[in-house]
Amino acid sequence: VVVAVDANGADLGPAEVAAGAGLASAAGVKVLLFGPAAELPEPPPGVELVDAPVSIAKHDDPARAVRTTPEASIVQAARAVADGRAQALVCAGGTGAALAAGLFNVKRAPGIYRPALALPLPVPGRGGAPVTLIDVGANVETRPEHLVQFAFMGGAFAQAVLGLARPRVALLSNGAEAQRGGPLLSAARAELELALATAGTGATIELVANVEGNNLLDGAVDVVVTDGFTGNVALKLIEGVSSTTLASIREAAMASPRARLGGLLLRPALRAFRDAVDPEAQGGAYLLGLRALAVVPHGRFRRGGFARAIVRAGDGVTEDVASRTQAQLERAGVLRRVPSASRFERSGAGAR
Amino acid sequence: VVVAVDANGADLGPAEVAAGAGLASAAGVKVLLFGPAAELPEPPPGVELVDAPVSIAKHDDPARAVRTTPEASIVQAARAVADGRAQALVCAGGTGAALAAGLFNVKRAPGIYRPALALPLPVPGRGGAPVTLIDVGANVETRPEHLVQFAFMGGAFAQAVLGLARPRVALLSNGAEAQRGGPLLSAARAELELALATAGTGATIELVANVEGNNLLDGAVDVVVTDGFTGNVALKLIEGVSSTTLASIREAAMASPRARLGGLLLRPALRAFRDAVDPEAQGGAYLLGLRALAVVPHGRFRRGGFARAIVRAGDGVTEDVASRTQAQLERAGVLRRVPSASRFERSGAGAR
Repeated sequence: VVVAVDANGADLGPAEVAAGAGLASAAGVKVLLFGPAAELPEPPPGVELVDAPVSIAKHDDPARAVRTTPEASIVQAARAVADGRAQALVCAGGTGAALAAGLFNVKRAPGIYRPALALPLPVPGRGGAPVTLIDVGANVETRPEHLVQFAFMGGAFAQAVLGLARPRVALLSNGAEAQRGGPLLSAARAELELALATAGTGATIELVANVEGNNLLDGAVDVVVTDGFTGNVALKLIEGVSSTTLASIREAAMASPRARLGGLLLRPALRAFRDAVDPEAQGGAYLLGLRALAVVPHGRFRRGGFARAIVRAGDGVTEDVASRTQAQLERAGVLRRVPSASRFERSGAGAR
Repeated sequence: VVVAVDANGADLGPAEVAAGAGLASAAGVKVLLFGPAAELPEPPPGVELVDAPVSIAKHDDPARAVRTTPEASIVQAARAVADGRAQALVCAGGTGAALAAGLFNVKRAPGIYRPALALPLPVPGRGGAPVTLIDVGANVETRPEHLVQFAFMGGAFAQAVLGLARPRVALLSNGAEAQRGGPLLSAARAELELALATAGTGATIELVANVEGNNLLDGAVDVVVTDGFTGNVALKLIEGVSSTTLASIREAAMASPRARLGGLLLRPALRAFRDAVDPEAQGGAYLLGLRALAVVPHGRFRRGGFARAIVRAGDGVTEDVASRTQAQLERAGVLRRVPSASRFERSGAGAR
């Protein structure tokens, strides 16, 4: 297994990504690393460094930057996957760049309407198993058939990469009743039920009742499906509320000498909680629906998070998440029938 | 000032609402209380009890229940507002019932497309000033002109009822840049900018950059505008994440004798934090865009929360939130021009 890694885009610089690549290669994953050779140390065995100093990580318009900058490290890394020199992609330079580079080079998997971003959210009290939210931002506007595919894509990911036997999948709604949520959700739910009936005993996901915001993290569901607008708002809200709450508690623990002592005594236990919900342990966001798996660790990650992203990308290759997704979508009869978009992309006329 | 209060629908029963009405009347607000006289004690001075034992609070289809149950306490309370016997409505029997009873009896204010639910969210570190999220569930699907009106409705509410001089209003989006969020948000933003330019120096709200989920509660914005689907998901997510985080910390504080002692010492400081974010202190959700203000305290509230809802409803009357909203919408040129929906409602043919 070889994973193509873009070293540019991390807050701590390319050397931190390279250090993560070293850790991942020690764990058995070969890495093809694209980054500025002048800024990086001699790579360890298992990591091959390709000099690619040009970064488009901070570009305003990633789609344009990808088209006009073939020498960019992310574009080179994506081409390595397209050429078969690597089987998965890891990029810390932002989801926009990863999505654009993936669409133009790795290409959409056959029959997939839209790639989607899946984020495994660490949740306390599930024995370490995260809840996967899909889509968290690749598609602001969605049609019912997109949500149906997201459900299977998220399910196959949770199965192949997170190791859940038969993921419980739910749509995110404003009420548990099926008729809430408007026509988009009603249509998506009806199509999903039909697809699962079509798949019959071969169905590898279980569709459960719609979840509301307050149930999203309570552990009863493994994959939560939503459009990229709502998913993005939800994801950032989760980050914001938990950090606001923790900051308020930290402040409360400074309010008096008594509270300060309490905070000090509580600290090791709180650290265990913080570790349990550490986003770096999940490797980042996963771009699903391309011909190969792409992982987008957050730019603020440290080497451990980048290593996890690379190892998880390797797991996706070993477990063949792309073909499994494809097979499950086919069995359920929800692949796109007219492959016009794929032809369009192959012509290079500009996808999305 | 007289506030019509539906006593049915509270988890703790009508007597708890009646106790809240007593507290509110002691604070100077007259109450017309609709509830089961047989279950309620003799009301204190300032509270007039009207026997209305029929409740539709737990009904599946509130719109139908409102139409077919004229004797229901919520319908009688809404009629009292329509007749001028009271000037505002308070109902703990759910937002669906309040919305339906309000639409059929109190009616939409002239030129308003859709009533919306506003929720003042208690936020630590703003000196007690909440952040108002609108819409949190009255309208699953919205058009740009609805969001524009919600912005002014939320602004007028924050000004008249919460006492903010010139509320800062933002659209909730998946990115701070104006072009993110898709066509609905772009159009709403353009219309809002035009409306504020039309209002000129008379504009009573300030439009600031779009907020993302993680900035929603950081205190830089007073009113956050979104569609009822996203708003409802967001609201429940905030509740879910903060209670999950607090529960995890409580659990961490049981992990060892040392942590237990720490938790014990920290408890008073944490109680202050819990009080600062107590939803009962905000009175509940506010239904804006009717001819009178309606407040929907949560069914699980205790008497203090119901009293706050009634007092806030009274403030809305004193500060004339309905006319002020109207005047601001008119000045900005964003009132609905063809009043067909209002005629439709007056004919009783079934609004919404």
